[in-house]
Amino acid sequence: MNIDLNCDLGESFGDWRMGDDAALLDIVTSANIACGFHAGDAATMRRTCEMAVEHSVSIGAHIGFRDLVGFGRRHIDITPGDLLDETLYQVGALAGFAHSAGSSVTYVKPHGALYHSASNSPELANAIVTAMTEFSNRLALLGPPQSHLQKAAEAHGVDFVAEGFADRTYTRFGTLTPRSEPGAVISDPDAATAQAIDLASSGTVLTSDGIAIPMSVKSICVHGDSPGAVAMANAIKAGLINSRIRVESFT
Amino acid sequence: MNIDLNCDLGESFGDWRMGDDAALLDIVTSANIACGFHAGDAATMRRTCEMAVEHSVSIGAHIGFRDLVGFGRRHIDITPGDLLDETLYQVGALAGFAHSAGSSVTYVKPHGALYHSASNSPELANAIVTAMTEFSNRLALLGPPQSHLQKAAEAHGVDFVAEGFADRTYTRFGTLTPRSEPGAVISDPDAATAQAIDLASSGTVLTSDGIAIPMSVKSICVHGDSPGAVAMANAIKAGLINSRIRVESFT
Amino acid sequence: MNIDLNCDLGESFGDWRMGDDAALLDIVTSANIACGFHAGDAATMRRTCEMAVEHSVSIGAHIGFRDLVGFGRRHIDITPGDLLDETLYQVGALAGFAHSAGSSVTYVKPHGALYHSASNSPELANAIVTAMTEFSNRLALLGPPQSHLQKAAEAHGVDFVAEGFADRTYTRFGTLTPRSEPGAVISDPDAATAQAIDLASSGTVLTSDGIAIPMSVKSICVHGDSPGAVAMANAIKAGLINSRIRVESFT
Amino acid sequence: MNIDLNCDLGESFGDWRMGDDAALLDIVTSANIACGFHAGDAATMRRTCEMAVEHSVSIGAHIGFRDLVGFGRRHIDITPGDLLDETLYQVGALAGFAHSAGSSVTYVKPHGALYHSASNSPELANAIVTAMTEFSNRLALLGPPQSHLQKAAEAHGVDFVAEGFADRTYTRFGTLTPRSEPGAVISDPDAATAQAIDLASSGTVLTSDGIAIPMSVKSICVHGDSPGAVAMANAIKAGLINSRIRVESFT
Repeated sequence: MNIDLNCDLGESFGDWRMGDDAALLDIVTSANIACGFHAGDAATMRRTCEMAVEHSVSIGAHIGFRDLVGFGRRHIDITPGDLLDETLYQVGALAGFAHSAGSSVTYVKPHGALYHSASNSPELANAIVTAMTEFSNRLALLGPPQSHLQKAAEAHGVDFVAEGFADRTYTRFGTLTPRSEPGAVISDPDAATAQAIDLASSGTVLTSDGIAIPMSVKSICVHGDSPGAVAMANAIKAGLINSRIRVESFT
Repeated sequence: MNIDLNCDLGESFGDWRMGDDAALLDIVTSANIACGFHAGDAATMRRTCEMAVEHSVSIGAHIGFRDLVGFGRRHIDITPGDLLDETLYQVGALAGFAHSAGSSVTYVKPHGALYHSASNSPELANAIVTAMTEFSNRLALLGPPQSHLQKAAEAHGVDFVAEGFADRTYTRFGTLTPRSEPGAVISDPDAATAQAIDLASSGTVLTSDGIAIPMSVKSICVHGDSPGAVAMANAIKAGLINSRIRVESFT
Repeated sequence: MNIDLNCDLGESFGDWRMGDDAALLDIVTSANIACGFHAGDAATMRRTCEMAVEHSVSIGAHIGFRDLVGFGRRHIDITPGDLLDETLYQVGALAGFAHSAGSSVTYVKPHGALYHSASNSPELANAIVTAMTEFSNRLALLGPPQSHLQKAAEAHGVDFVAEGFADRTYTRFGTLTPRSEPGAVISDPDAATAQAIDLASSGTVLTSDGIAIPMSVKSICVHGDSPGAVAMANAIKAGLINSRIRVESFT
Repeated sequence: MNIDLNCDLGESFGDWRMGDDAALLDIVTSANIACGFHAGDAATMRRTCEMAVEHSVSIGAHIGFRDLVGFGRRHIDITPGDLLDETLYQVGALAGFAHSAGSSVTYVKPHGALYHSASNSPELANAIVTAMTEFSNRLALLGPPQSHLQKAAEAHGVDFVAEGFADRTYTRFGTLTPRSEPGAVISDPDAATAQAIDLASSGTVLTSDGIAIPMSVKSICVHGDSPGAVAMANAIKAGLINSRIRVESFT
């Protein structure tokens, strides 16, 4: 049994710092690196790629809406054509740094509002996957299971890597409990670790109302934007290893 | 005998249009395509790369300072490290579109204030060339002869392509007459064509005070930002062909 | 009888030019001046304010989404709080130039996607009007009749100026025929002029299916983004004057 | 005897946080608030103005180069005309928030590279002061003594407020010891406090080679970008008060 751990990284911008990238690269196996549209500047992209290579962590392009002040968390009513082009731009820009660091971009993951919008829109999902195939035939797509991102990847013959969350509860429909509802977030490291082990070993997850539903994922997304989050990511990884689940990149 | 004609292209941004790219791609053999920092957005970069390929024109990365409102025409006191990273970012971003269009980036040319600053600074010139070698070992550098750009290219074993100007006069020191001085610009198409033929065939140019000096160039830069400029570019190309000089890309 | 003519102006950005502002300022009585978020830089804002004052044209803040590459034509999922702040920022920035030119900002008009989003959203409309009242108690709001913009203005005691279109047809519900439908745009200057005269003199408009409906407006929006548009704007103004309708600012 | 303490504030941008503004507003009497060009977004500007008013701290416009990724720390080769316009834009934008919070902008201080460039350039200094006088006749200018900023302010009849530094050593020429030299920064809170008391009470300062030179300042700049810096700012303020020097805004 094995599972990937992915995390958002390289989210600093100029003099503004965000996240403890060094600590997280000790934990995760896949790095979603911001490409300059919602976060990340050229120097941050280089540094993050180099650190990822030093830690033998896979490099993914964390593409986002062109919206620094909104950190890519606000939907922009983009056309599929523009999204196609902005995806290709961001993946290409990151690829230079990955190559310079002795590696390459192996996957794409949409960030923030784009993650949600593209998961729910066949047109936007298709735009992202089309850009990926234009770039190379070796990129995988990381996203939520059963989404339009998955459908678009499959339609184009692109590897799709479904991801789950250790620190979020699921509804019986297989979707995440909205953050606006009570119990959406799992803040107890033991509970999050237990859910991660379930996801990685059994291919199921217990919903918030206690039902086991199938949830087949190849990666688990961990967060790193607070000291507590880093500690939780460490606890999850230790729990997985203790359960004899190999933590390794999906690539 | 042969010579390349290069021109700045892809300088639109969003709804703002600039230049008659279609007309110019009928004339030139090398397209300096803006990469999003001083001009050019993702959609413009795709469109320009596709048009360049349709016209069998070579694709070059026209890298610039990150300064849309200044169009890259103002020097920014950048560190060599940041310039290295921003060069790699821009070349990588353009490469995705060149690849998608069935071609590749074959050279780099600095734009505007960066052209002048890097020509005069060993550190900035070195930063650009280092980024180029990180990206691939097949990129050429286009710039002014005898500049620090040339020296840096030679030091790194990078092909350097010296360019001249048909519509600017030269001093006896081999530099361009500053635009602030009378007679700096050649507005007569016949005179510009004569200078282009000189540059391409004899490796010399007549200075503004009438002395022939050596000026060995492999490309001539033409401008396209006005209807008159397009007509002059056409006249120069016709004159070169009439003089049995092949107009073809240096790559 | 009198009517105002308003037009979008100051939409250049850096070296990119848009619109024939000088020609339009000879025609209109109210200038919707871009404030730097979707178009317009500081130098353009100064120049446009100074030209407006020379032509005795009223200065309005044409506020937009922070989206240069999309020219403010794409909805961004902004919070009302952020829209409130971005409105105050833009109005304040323009006010400095209006004051320096010897005038002041007298009204606000949302641009592009914000015009439509705020017209249909009580929360966004309220955010804009709240920012206006924070800035001064003398700003009017220009927008479509019967919209949430009108409701929000009335709720806050802010003057609302309803605008109509001479070159767009109306449905029997008082809304504009969507551009995606045939007959949405009136390209015949005589027909547009006739509609302008109707709007200004009778407070009615003939719908696309030939019914006269009430349409009470105090301003007519003219466009200027093409030579034909300038000619049409001139024709409309001449037609209004010939019908003894005074063309003057609503302020 | 009295002295002002000023500090850079409102330097967050979007999701990126910088500085402990709340702690600093308990200490200083003048807040240099970023206006969106090098740092600060509309929401941050509102929040910072409101907090400044709650703490009875004067609001100043901290104008900077348009360079988010460089945080305004890199000189941009701007024309005086563009600097004039960008100053007016920034001051106007901040004024809306100051007014909304029940206060007003009372002074202008250039930030980062602009501070240094305008101190050394009559043309740039004149551009800033001209924009200030266009905005209102009640703005003061905060900057280094004996600089071109001071000269330009005096030439325009604008109040100039000279500032000194408690944590930097001075040369015998009255300039700051460059940071590249040893002993440039005073990291001992007692020594910094002693220098602040000297500056405020005697109008002199001891140079790095032990000579007392005249240094007449009405404000002392404190830094807040680290926990140690906040502690030092507190120590300086306490030392001033203990020496019976009133710490109060210069306005």
